[in-house]
Amino acid sequence: MSLLTVGSVAFDAIETPFGKTDKIIGGAGTYIALAAAFYNNEQNIVSVVGEDFPEEMLNQLKDRNVNIDGLQIKKGEKTFFWSGKYHNDMNSRDTLVTELNVLEHFDPIIPEHYQGADFLLLGNLSPQVQAQVIERLTVRPKLIAMDTMNFWMDIAMDDLKKTISMVDILIINDEEARQLSGEYSLVKASKVIRAIGPKYLIIKKGEHGALLFEGDRVFFAPALPLEEVFDPTGAGDTFAGGFMGYLASTNDISFENMKRAIINGSALASFCVEKFGTERLMTITKADLEKRIEQFVALTNFEMVHAIS
Amino acid sequence: MSLLTVGSVAFDAIETPFGKTDKIIGGAGTYIALAAAFYNNEQNIVSVVGEDFPEEMLNQLKDRNVNIDGLQIKKGEKTFFWSGKYHNDMNSRDTLVTELNVLEHFDPIIPEHYQGADFLLLGNLSPQVQAQVIERLTVRPKLIAMDTMNFWMDIAMDDLKKTISMVDILIINDEEARQLSGEYSLVKASKVIRAIGPKYLIIKKGEHGALLFEGDRVFFAPALPLEEVFDPTGAGDTFAGGFMGYLASTNDISFENMKRAIINGSALASFCVEKFGTERLMTITKADLEKRIEQFVALTNFEMVHAIS
Repeated sequence: MSLLTVGSVAFDAIETPFGKTDKIIGGAGTYIALAAAFYNNEQNIVSVVGEDFPEEMLNQLKDRNVNIDGLQIKKGEKTFFWSGKYHNDMNSRDTLVTELNVLEHFDPIIPEHYQGADFLLLGNLSPQVQAQVIERLTVRPKLIAMDTMNFWMDIAMDDLKKTISMVDILIINDEEARQLSGEYSLVKASKVIRAIGPKYLIIKKGEHGALLFEGDRVFFAPALPLEEVFDPTGAGDTFAGGFMGYLASTNDISFENMKRAIINGSALASFCVEKFGTERLMTITKADLEKRIEQFVALTNFEMVHAIS
Repeated sequence: MSLLTVGSVAFDAIETPFGKTDKIIGGAGTYIALAAAFYNNEQNIVSVVGEDFPEEMLNQLKDRNVNIDGLQIKKGEKTFFWSGKYHNDMNSRDTLVTELNVLEHFDPIIPEHYQGADFLLLGNLSPQVQAQVIERLTVRPKLIAMDTMNFWMDIAMDDLKKTISMVDILIINDEEARQLSGEYSLVKASKVIRAIGPKYLIIKKGEHGALLFEGDRVFFAPALPLEEVFDPTGAGDTFAGGFMGYLASTNDISFENMKRAIINGSALASFCVEKFGTERLMTITKADLEKRIEQFVALTNFEMVHAIS
């Protein structure tokens, strides 16, 4: 199927207890595209970079069959830049620098041949831009998923809720779910959030796995227990990209298949955190991914055989 | 099979964001016995109370086929008392009062007819008392599991490690695993801790589920997402009691069966937290438990059917 992804393509500078990087390639759109590229879809991306963005990375995306006709390159402007430092527990981080640059006036233009996308994944961007993308599509995709973050809850809650009401799946983390709903219990939060509109809600809990809610059904996928989380940057975007890439390639949006999609997203995210930035995602193969999915099966698989006597 | 449990039978006074209790029945041994009583075993308990302990509760244990011949009632002495207050997130708590009373000089006498126990569960007690119990058994049980807590790591680390080296399964929470091992990563912690002696390690992560480690194998069981955690007191002990009660009743200590035992323990713990103290455990039926186990199956069950294309 065709998958349209919209998200930032950016520079990051990251500091973790294990070391620090210079400017490296980052951005939600980049992680999503790299993760989704493991699945056989027509993948189109809408994004924007400055003329400082390396052509080599654009070629890497093209090599992975990502169509970048919708990726605008702004002459004389600079690419979005984010810099952050993770605390020792790797679960929290401080933003050191945010330079919006080309993202400040981003107009998400949809190339004509992108129209008719079957699946749409809106990476974290301003809710107005996310809504614009949906409005500019002449045919509503079969499934629309979106990511967002607490930043938009702080400064644009009304716009955010309006955009959330337009999508089928919201993908956020536990803290964001609590902030968005005003509820501490994730079960209660999931009801409040789904009442805004989305039929499905995925709550990412980092090293504690992810939950999928729909109607009265809940599915829980663990994160793979790792010796070391080297750099969590992009793990959530990688998860979302793997999730939607898998769904699109199988063209099956049943609850049962969403479970498999979550396991795929979790497996890709577990690779992402093993090195800085996109490094690990750029080098693993489909065989690596399949092997890791087997580890997830082994990790969670059990069968009840005895009645309680 | 026969299951011998050793653990405190006590009074608690609990304060949570939902309310507070007067003195109610608590203690690791109580929760373990109530949970294990859901499974068909010969269950024997070794513990100690003062003469202030209500006979009605002892009768409740007897009604559940718990043999209390090894539960000493000390004339003129008072039962162990603990009082604590949970913070808003329910994951941390302050101890307000600890009165050791009868526990201060607890001599864990094993009645002759308790000898030959197939399974032994050592609830949280001083590591010296736990070791004494093992030493006093004339035949080593088929499987010995123990719980402990950070308190003993603070004041008696050497004794604790010695006792840990004598058991097959250590059951602790994530914070305790980190303190015991000096490793933040639970995968690394599990290696350090198993090097002390136990073949199996279970790390409880509260609302984030539980991990079982053995050799290179890991199993992860989620906690059931609940609308409300009313009172977490005793959830860990209930988990351990359900785990060992199930293992003993099925008389199967394979890794596959330990997974099922963890699901049983998790299901019982999910009931425990729904009301104050032992209230919920005292009223649920085997049918309630079976229904909840089905919820765990639905929560985690998935099947990979598509190859990555």
